[in-house]
Amino acid sequence: MAEQVRVVVDAMGGDNAPAEPVKAAVEAVTERQDIKVILTGKQDVIEGELAKYSGYPTEQIQIVPASEVIETAEPPVFAIRKKKDSSIVVGLKLVKTQEADAFVSSGSTGAVLVGGQVLVGRSKGVERPPLAPLIPTTKGVALLIDCGANVDARPSHLVQFAKMGSIYMENVVGIKNPKVAIVNNGAEEEKGNALVKETFPLLKECKGINFIGSIEARDIPYGYADVVVCEAFVGNVILKLYEGVGGALIQKVKEGLMTSLKTKIGALLIKPALKSTLKSFDASEHGGAPLLGLKGLVVKTHGSAKAIEIKHAIFQCVQFKQQKINEKIAEHILEDQPDKTAEKQEQ
Amino acid sequence: MAEQVRVVVDAMGGDNAPAEPVKAAVEAVTERQDIKVILTGKQDVIEGELAKYSGYPTEQIQIVPASEVIETAEPPVFAIRKKKDSSIVVGLKLVKTQEADAFVSSGSTGAVLVGGQVLVGRSKGVERPPLAPLIPTTKGVALLIDCGANVDARPSHLVQFAKMGSIYMENVVGIKNPKVAIVNNGAEEEKGNALVKETFPLLKECKGINFIGSIEARDIPYGYADVVVCEAFVGNVILKLYEGVGGALIQKVKEGLMTSLKTKIGALLIKPALKSTLKSFDASEHGGAPLLGLKGLVVKTHGSAKAIEIKHAIFQCVQFKQQKINEKIAEHILEDQPDKTAEKQEQ
Repeated sequence: MAEQVRVVVDAMGGDNAPAEPVKAAVEAVTERQDIKVILTGKQDVIEGELAKYSGYPTEQIQIVPASEVIETAEPPVFAIRKKKDSSIVVGLKLVKTQEADAFVSSGSTGAVLVGGQVLVGRSKGVERPPLAPLIPTTKGVALLIDCGANVDARPSHLVQFAKMGSIYMENVVGIKNPKVAIVNNGAEEEKGNALVKETFPLLKECKGINFIGSIEARDIPYGYADVVVCEAFVGNVILKLYEGVGGALIQKVKEGLMTSLKTKIGALLIKPALKSTLKSFDASEHGGAPLLGLKGLVVKTHGSAKAIEIKHAIFQCVQFKQQKINEKIAEHILEDQPDKTAEKQEQ
Repeated sequence: MAEQVRVVVDAMGGDNAPAEPVKAAVEAVTERQDIKVILTGKQDVIEGELAKYSGYPTEQIQIVPASEVIETAEPPVFAIRKKKDSSIVVGLKLVKTQEADAFVSSGSTGAVLVGGQVLVGRSKGVERPPLAPLIPTTKGVALLIDCGANVDARPSHLVQFAKMGSIYMENVVGIKNPKVAIVNNGAEEEKGNALVKETFPLLKECKGINFIGSIEARDIPYGYADVVVCEAFVGNVILKLYEGVGGALIQKVKEGLMTSLKTKIGALLIKPALKSTLKSFDASEHGGAPLLGLKGLVVKTHGSAKAIEIKHAIFQCVQFKQQKINEKIAEHILEDQPDKTAEKQEQ
């Protein structure tokens, strides 16, 4: 049996905590022997949830108590500093001290982002750790990198995002030679704002990635690229507009189907198929967004994540560890930085 | 009878030229006496199209010949400079010389943008003329300003966009006291990139607009704001992602409805209702995007615009002229610029 991968799951984070994170832990260890889940949060609450299940390998689940909970509305930096006994801080520290390999939370995105950087720390050579959600496309999924807190990024950051994203898509999601594109306001090379114009030639010269050029926003949902590189402000707009346009369109379709008896009957017939289609195209359903470039893996699942998505995030962590993604990222990031490579060799 | 508004329509621009622009001209003058349409383009081609119609007030349509056509793929600056006898250049010059009040084209967006600025010229005090398409929301439409060529805009530009957009929505689209919001990566005031953080307080202090704060991209399609202010790169991403997510989702829905006999029957029953719903939420259907802040009105309709959309753009031009929007914009832009107001008074 392979060595167990130790994944911390924030039992108190998200709209459906503690029920769904605990359920995800139970299902994950029931399915796979190579996982150990560490649940952080209020011990009595977690024990109460676990008591609902039987027949699972109890030795693969451990509770590490944390008495506090960081709420979504709290200012992240302040919350991380003050709530030292929160499920997020306790969980991230387990990754920092290498008592765990990865951390999964559906809690406050800001706190996970800040905590990941401050408590777990960046890998050597990584300038800014990007948050990279998987978004649905008509062909499958694409990695949108960055959607984090790094607004006003520099070209060198975007080049690192492209590299990290490629490694993740190839090794964790399983897409061979993933196509990398930069979000632009036109397909032509002369298009772009100052950031894109400066980044484009760097990506063209970048070794080890399959750079296909610019991508216009309209082509993202059709899966023209596997790794969609952008600065965080733009990434945030893309991620949230995916959700907004999808939701608004569905609302309009529902209204449209209630206009006559004929359409109402039709609606009944298509309802299940329509529902599953719409679900497959819901950005939130692909939940797990890794925060890359840290010394351990941190995955942010959607605030409304259910057990199945959290379980998938746990499995992503296992894949991440077993494929030695962090080592690959560190190696790839450092190979273009002669100074830092030299420095490394001297050590 | 009110004075006639003279609208130039580019008879050669767009995927459906010359048939649809000419049809739009005929329908517009048939419906309203207060419009004169000037068609620019190849005389024989336009005459051939006009010959298909009868019973319309022929004296309300005039042809101004232009022997050249600017193709969508041509570099805009070069095309405007070289093709002096193109339908776009000839049309814009009619606005410049005040032989016409407005210009409508479904042709090359780049050429219309560049030509509008170079040939028609900016209104006094306007720093950058924004291109502002109307996008669909669940409540109606919103004005997305800017989607033009002004990437990397400055805060003062965004403030002017907010003012111009408010005047347009109030006076042309007819929304009283339109709600103005700035696109941001979070709802809280401390969120944002450098541009948004600098612009936010300026909008807060700006008189004569109903500023409601930040808008996250997910809320745009629900019509939380009537005037959605952003820098052109972000605006381009929003406009094109609207199209992309909508299109991809529809493709997935169609596939989903073909999976079983039951859903196929259901699909037949809902088809017409579904089609009209989706059409109402198609950004391209709201076609007319005004290029604001010029000495005359220039409206860019979608490349695939049909006669009905072009006709609506023509009517927008009439409203624009009759409501004296340019005068209102000039007045409102100048009132916050003490130096320029003083300069104006001295003249």
